[in-house]
Amino acid sequence: MALGSTAVRAGIVVTGTEVLTGRVSDRNGPWLAEQLRLVGVDVGRVVVVGDRADDLVAALHHLMADHDLVITSGGLGPTADDLTARVVADVQGRPSRLDPDLERRIGVVVEALMARRRWKSDPEALAAGTRKQATVPEGAFVLEPVGTAPGLVVLPVEGRIGPPVVVLPGPPSELRGMWPAALAAPAVVELLARTTPLQQDTIRLWGTLEADLAASLRRIEAKLGDLEVSTCLRDGELEIVTRFAPAVRDRVDLLRQTILDDFGSTVFSTDGSTVDDVVAEALTARGWTVATAESCTGGLLGARLTARPGSSGYVVGTVVGYANDVKTSLLGVPAATLQAHGAVSEEVATALAEGARTVLGADVGIGVTGIAGPGGGTQDKPVGTVELAVVSPTGRRTRRLSLPGDRDLVRLRSVVTALHELRLLLTREHR
Amino acid sequence: MALGSTAVRAGIVVTGTEVLTGRVSDRNGPWLAEQLRLVGVDVGRVVVVGDRADDLVAALHHLMADHDLVITSGGLGPTADDLTARVVADVQGRPSRLDPDLERRIGVVVEALMARRRWKSDPEALAAGTRKQATVPEGAFVLEPVGTAPGLVVLPVEGRIGPPVVVLPGPPSELRGMWPAALAAPAVVELLARTTPLQQDTIRLWGTLEADLAASLRRIEAKLGDLEVSTCLRDGELEIVTRFAPAVRDRVDLLRQTILDDFGSTVFSTDGSTVDDVVAEALTARGWTVATAESCTGGLLGARLTARPGSSGYVVGTVVGYANDVKTSLLGVPAATLQAHGAVSEEVATALAEGARTVLGADVGIGVTGIAGPGGGTQDKPVGTVELAVVSPTGRRTRRLSLPGDRDLVRLRSVVTALHELRLLLTREHR
Repeated sequence: MALGSTAVRAGIVVTGTEVLTGRVSDRNGPWLAEQLRLVGVDVGRVVVVGDRADDLVAALHHLMADHDLVITSGGLGPTADDLTARVVADVQGRPSRLDPDLERRIGVVVEALMARRRWKSDPEALAAGTRKQATVPEGAFVLEPVGTAPGLVVLPVEGRIGPPVVVLPGPPSELRGMWPAALAAPAVVELLARTTPLQQDTIRLWGTLEADLAASLRRIEAKLGDLEVSTCLRDGELEIVTRFAPAVRDRVDLLRQTILDDFGSTVFSTDGSTVDDVVAEALTARGWTVATAESCTGGLLGARLTARPGSSGYVVGTVVGYANDVKTSLLGVPAATLQAHGAVSEEVATALAEGARTVLGADVGIGVTGIAGPGGGTQDKPVGTVELAVVSPTGRRTRRLSLPGDRDLVRLRSVVTALHELRLLLTREHR
Repeated sequence: MALGSTAVRAGIVVTGTEVLTGRVSDRNGPWLAEQLRLVGVDVGRVVVVGDRADDLVAALHHLMADHDLVITSGGLGPTADDLTARVVADVQGRPSRLDPDLERRIGVVVEALMARRRWKSDPEALAAGTRKQATVPEGAFVLEPVGTAPGLVVLPVEGRIGPPVVVLPGPPSELRGMWPAALAAPAVVELLARTTPLQQDTIRLWGTLEADLAASLRRIEAKLGDLEVSTCLRDGELEIVTRFAPAVRDRVDLLRQTILDDFGSTVFSTDGSTVDDVVAEALTARGWTVATAESCTGGLLGARLTARPGSSGYVVGTVVGYANDVKTSLLGVPAATLQAHGAVSEEVATALAEGARTVLGADVGIGVTGIAGPGGGTQDKPVGTVELAVVSPTGRRTRRLSLPGDRDLVRLRSVVTALHELRLLLTREHR
């Protein structure tokens, strides 16, 4: 562990049957992990449990055994299946008590909320919910509600030894809003006094094989020692992340230089920026606008380009021609081209890109047409066949893809590849 | 526990620093939880660990203590940070050995893969990776590779007692492809002989408050007994899910009837169908097509409508007029209307919906215009203000939203609300 044996480690418990069964994906664990890194706390393990007391107890004991801090998210609502506060009280050996002053404060928040949203509800039901939310472990440090649920910092009852448990609400906006107060709680401040913020170094590649990267890393593994290097493939991008204490910066520099020496031409980011960032910056630098003409991606590329704040500065719009008629009538793809080459062809992708430029009035046009499946494949053009074209005032790129995976994956990979083709066109021409 | 005390419980370990730190969101835990439910196995807890042996060992011991089966995903790749097979061998008390026959089989797969993708790689690096992937716990039941990594079913070494550990690869397509073989492994078959498939009942509401639902449930809680009822709010939809053994069907029926009696007008699904399913069915039943004209959602609504296989039967396309010019030139929104009411207004939303119908040639048009933020808000129309319009040949609905949350959330909630407005127009008119 290059982080040093004195590193402060936190464990995270995410509660909720809806998360355990995958109906809702957890946004809190990853966010907390990143926030903890920024204050120098390393995350050991995350446990997801349903709304069952026994499993929550087991998860807490498990993490308390070898972590300096445990953080829970969720289970603070007004309904009976929200049981985190009571279970944490039990585990820390503290009785649960109604805090009348807290009950009053929550009552005020709930009333204001109902008035603002013009909601009507049964007053008795509301009061019962408020009472439940104001019932907290005796002696706990209360974090004021951001929504209606208070958070808690709960130490073991006097005479027992163990880590503090920070209890946070499940809705991401409430959890995030409460985070500064959690960091300022005396027990947390005391822990943070022992930490050094961990740095993170990220390198992203497009077009290098994981096996080749592994071979490069093996060559220098003795020199890297116990540096924590994590590589992952995501949507076709290869990402290498190291988290490290400032003292081992030289090993991170060696890693970075080795990757640049061996795979420099496929490295597209060394500062944590995403392909979206790189594309936005390149468009802005040139003063160019972009528009998309999409078929199989159904608007996903336009949605991705406009996901960034400020994208109205360079995104003009999108036409999705899901029906072939629209490709012709609205985007000017000649019916003869569709007839001769089929909707999924380099010719049609290029005509779509040109159409996006002309019809929407943009400098750069992107055309995407393909077969996302599960139906529609042929022997010549099986499911996963996608044609991309990017056209700028000064150049063009086209590419045919044979993508594996299901409909969602084919659409996602088409979008990511289109962004990289756009990046390559913007950053490689005129050099 | 209405599931009965003899229920077979599984614990899941998801490995990967990229998952632990939130760079990649886990798709395997939720998928495995659902597959296990179908064969009658209840999931107790999911533990996410990074690529560190100590944490993996702790997670395995934790889950093995009170689960009948443990399943791991990830950590079977050719790189040094992939250490699941070795750690599971240690935990089950078995030595790790190179299986030369397996090494040969993996070699064949790797060669074919490299040839198909026309990849080139260092032969020694490839051989080292293959050797690592073929080094497995002695006596383990091998699940043939779907990609290049074999899966494993590993029992404790003779003389020890404990649950079997099923070791599966991390890439979702490989894990899913290997699942049938895992279910057919002798140790798993033996466990499944003790199970009864669990049923699942799902009810979805749009427009009922969680607190009011909680009050209804409290009224019948004595009769529901220990039935596991999980409620969650997702994108504004309220979802109630019960998982149960067939013997307690009557309690589930009581729950369902209570919800229908109290909130029938907001229930939009009682059979697990999503709003997407309901909309697709209603469009198909009427033989109507749909098109969208979007601004702040940037194509996300079109992408959502076309996410379903077969959507080409009723989706014509989308025009995203991110720039106001496009709203006028391509969608026919009168410049005077934009001028008089502003781009975010009921008038422009309606003109967008009409434009989508006319320009794209669809029966139903949806218009979305709003301020997703973080910039662009005014006192009159703060960030989160969104205007929606849905127009069909026989009716129309418009709605102004004031959405909380960040840019992503405003866009997502706009899309979900637009789908519900479409649903209401399609299912309520002419009744």
